[in-house]
Amino acid sequence: MLRAIQYSSANKLLQLATTSCARNASSSPQCEPSKPNIRTAVPGPKTLQLSAELNQLQQAGSVQLIGDYERCVGNYFVDVDGNEFLDAFTQISSIPVGYNHPHLLTAFEDQKNIKALVNRPALGVFPDKEWPQKLRDILLPVAPSGLTNISTMMCGSCSNENAYKAVFIWYRNKERGTVEFSEEEMQSCMKNAAPGSPNLSILSFVDAFHGRTFGSLSTTRSKAIHKIDVPAFDWPVAPFPKYRYPLDQFERENQEEDARCLEQVQARINEYKSRCPVAGVVVEPIQSEGGDNEASPQFFRNLQKLCKENGIALIIDEVQTGCGPTGKMWAYEHFELPSPPDLLTFSKKMLTGGFYFKPEFKPPQAYRVFNTWMGDPSKLILLERVLQVIKRENLLDRVQKTGAVLKGGLHELEKEFPQLIHSVRGRGTFLSFTAKDSAVRDQINNGLKKNGVLGGGCGEASIRLRPSLVFEPKHAHIYLDVLRKTLKEL
Amino acid sequence: MLRAIQYSSANKLLQLATTSCARNASSSPQCEPSKPNIRTAVPGPKTLQLSAELNQLQQAGSVQLIGDYERCVGNYFVDVDGNEFLDAFTQISSIPVGYNHPHLLTAFEDQKNIKALVNRPALGVFPDKEWPQKLRDILLPVAPSGLTNISTMMCGSCSNENAYKAVFIWYRNKERGTVEFSEEEMQSCMKNAAPGSPNLSILSFVDAFHGRTFGSLSTTRSKAIHKIDVPAFDWPVAPFPKYRYPLDQFERENQEEDARCLEQVQARINEYKSRCPVAGVVVEPIQSEGGDNEASPQFFRNLQKLCKENGIALIIDEVQTGCGPTGKMWAYEHFELPSPPDLLTFSKKMLTGGFYFKPEFKPPQAYRVFNTWMGDPSKLILLERVLQVIKRENLLDRVQKTGAVLKGGLHELEKEFPQLIHSVRGRGTFLSFTAKDSAVRDQINNGLKKNGVLGGGCGEASIRLRPSLVFEPKHAHIYLDVLRKTLKEL
Repeated sequence: MLRAIQYSSANKLLQLATTSCARNASSSPQCEPSKPNIRTAVPGPKTLQLSAELNQLQQAGSVQLIGDYERCVGNYFVDVDGNEFLDAFTQISSIPVGYNHPHLLTAFEDQKNIKALVNRPALGVFPDKEWPQKLRDILLPVAPSGLTNISTMMCGSCSNENAYKAVFIWYRNKERGTVEFSEEEMQSCMKNAAPGSPNLSILSFVDAFHGRTFGSLSTTRSKAIHKIDVPAFDWPVAPFPKYRYPLDQFERENQEEDARCLEQVQARINEYKSRCPVAGVVVEPIQSEGGDNEASPQFFRNLQKLCKENGIALIIDEVQTGCGPTGKMWAYEHFELPSPPDLLTFSKKMLTGGFYFKPEFKPPQAYRVFNTWMGDPSKLILLERVLQVIKRENLLDRVQKTGAVLKGGLHELEKEFPQLIHSVRGRGTFLSFTAKDSAVRDQINNGLKKNGVLGGGCGEASIRLRPSLVFEPKHAHIYLDVLRKTLKEL
Repeated sequence: MLRAIQYSSANKLLQLATTSCARNASSSPQCEPSKPNIRTAVPGPKTLQLSAELNQLQQAGSVQLIGDYERCVGNYFVDVDGNEFLDAFTQISSIPVGYNHPHLLTAFEDQKNIKALVNRPALGVFPDKEWPQKLRDILLPVAPSGLTNISTMMCGSCSNENAYKAVFIWYRNKERGTVEFSEEEMQSCMKNAAPGSPNLSILSFVDAFHGRTFGSLSTTRSKAIHKIDVPAFDWPVAPFPKYRYPLDQFERENQEEDARCLEQVQARINEYKSRCPVAGVVVEPIQSEGGDNEASPQFFRNLQKLCKENGIALIIDEVQTGCGPTGKMWAYEHFELPSPPDLLTFSKKMLTGGFYFKPEFKPPQAYRVFNTWMGDPSKLILLERVLQVIKRENLLDRVQKTGAVLKGGLHELEKEFPQLIHSVRGRGTFLSFTAKDSAVRDQINNGLKKNGVLGGGCGEASIRLRPSLVFEPKHAHIYLDVLRKTLKEL
């Protein structure tokens, strides 16, 4: 009888929790499962069925799981087979504050916001009366210090492409010393020929990932499958530092590696000067898709110095690192650059694409960095809520705290399983480690999934952690426990 | 007394209409103004103020008016100064069924749809359980006949870029005769060099517009300001027919023009065979941005034949012509091609970007036509409603009816003002006319705006009409009256 009463009370509490859950302002929903819960084989029968259906319509070989987004909550991804996964991948790092966050779910209760969603304007021609204010109130307060201009875009690729365009326009304006075009430029560009379509390049790094459209793909150097069969510009590529770990044991070697890479950057700039001069350098603060390769603050400071000396723009690509996962709003803030980068691009967790830039990168004429939509106001409505949650709940602090737990645990595991994993690295919860080889990496990733944790691969043999910003130390412990179990099972 | 009662009754009726308006399922909202209403100078003081504010943050020289989207309704755009314009431009042709359509405003009352908006998935990896069904139920029923595959994207530029990628992948698979890559291909592509990054091209036409990212911009040939200072691929360009009007008086000349252009297409294909072979041809059914240039059904049938003979893919770019404005769902349906095009791209009125394609253009491997988001499910929720409205209200019929009124009226005006405008052309309500020169075109467009009508310029000296699909004959008459008034004032 007592048990029955206790059970009934617990049930009522659960109901209360579930009811309050939908409206609860906390980022750590009380209705999250307490741990992963795997009910079927992974992938389950319904995922397999629906993936096959999707594959009738398009190439669906990349599908891992079919989601049930109505049931996802906080840090837990629920698939169509009812399996509940702790999500340390979060839609390729693009869910900022967890699934179905209550503060986001209520964003469209205001009819004004529904109207913004339904009447999508051509922002470059007929923006809404609140648009300048929204850019000032939502995007400028989190702008990289010194970057006072902003263009919104649709995704990471087009953010980079348009940043490159802004760089080429700036570079040619410097070269011609006037904002007037010559007749020869105007006519030759219509034939895709110089001088109107100039032989200019963007330098990128080995293992970089900057997107998949033709311009951004010409700077992507991650994997052959991303690039093969697609025409690309003859643009230069320089090595990105490959460090030896643990960092404190290989300081000298890693400094030499920095110097070697920077020398190669200068060599490429010199080499391309007569062929296809470098107008800009694009770099990720931590190379993500290409293997979670980090470089030292000193490397970035020297890279910036080198760009300035050569009259070249520095573009920081924060599509994956931006919006908090390293414990700062922008990862490049860790580098303490003496002056801001020239342009900084974003997307993913920011929900809208776009880029910040110095005023000198504003094209002198209209219709040059332009397209029909120029972004999407409905994404800013959500981003505003995301930034409120980040601030209100001190999520950057939480990322640092959770990251410390996670990284500490990963260091223990690399000691416990030295034959399987090594090179634990990263900042905040933007962490990764490398497996013995790519086969072991795939085994670990599949094992994690079968044990209820989602993670992503990157590079040759690495696993990246990309939880959302509401990942707490308790989630870190679950992740670590599941990883230990998985490594033991290998 | 009687007048007071009548007034009071009318007022009550108006109130009723206004109340029902918000929930009225009709596409021609009763709460639309009965005619344009201009209260201030155009642009008004608030538009000027807010444009200046926006220009502090980005290049805002392209801004025409600042909108008040809460007050826009049906075919009427309301600006921040309270001016009510009859909108025959509709956000660069991207508002399908008018502003604040009640059937769209209610689309997110279902919490499930709010969750789809808040939890944006990586569609290529973790699509929602309803996604395959949504593609089948929403996008396939309006697919071009014979195109059974579909990829969703974010905008027109990236839809074209990804269609081009699918074409290059298809072309190289044909060339190599296997889906296996050679080691040389895999290594060379990482350096942006052949054979991995092949010297292949997409042929486009003079005055074409296909987007502004580096790949799509390499096929855009509209205006120097769109292209200058941006590196471009050395891809071929062929002339697009320039017809003499009225068409029935210049049949022979226009047929010769078709033949001349097709000869040039073949000549470019031959010329580029050794240098950078043509893998695909991209063409708009009616060139829009480049001047609303149309070509005959015979031209398109022969172009398709030529592509087939040369083993080249034909991509129809329906970003602006798609979703009904020519009186058919897809403009190419007017051409009665003996077989479907290989790929068809869309965006704008479709609200989501994307492209339809034949199964042979599905890449044999995953992660090749891929990106983080691969579209946006929230746009499909709105598109579903748009397509329901189009069907329920027979909007394609209405477009034809309204288009006939509009075109008839424009023909009368070109007879009435032969010294000012000529070459009335187009299909459905996708119409245009050419002014004497670009200065007169700008005068007409500004005059229309001051008199309460929004239209767009295109090409050297043309004005394009791009009303939404709910434009009725009564709106056509207002447009024509205002245009006549404007022409008289010149």
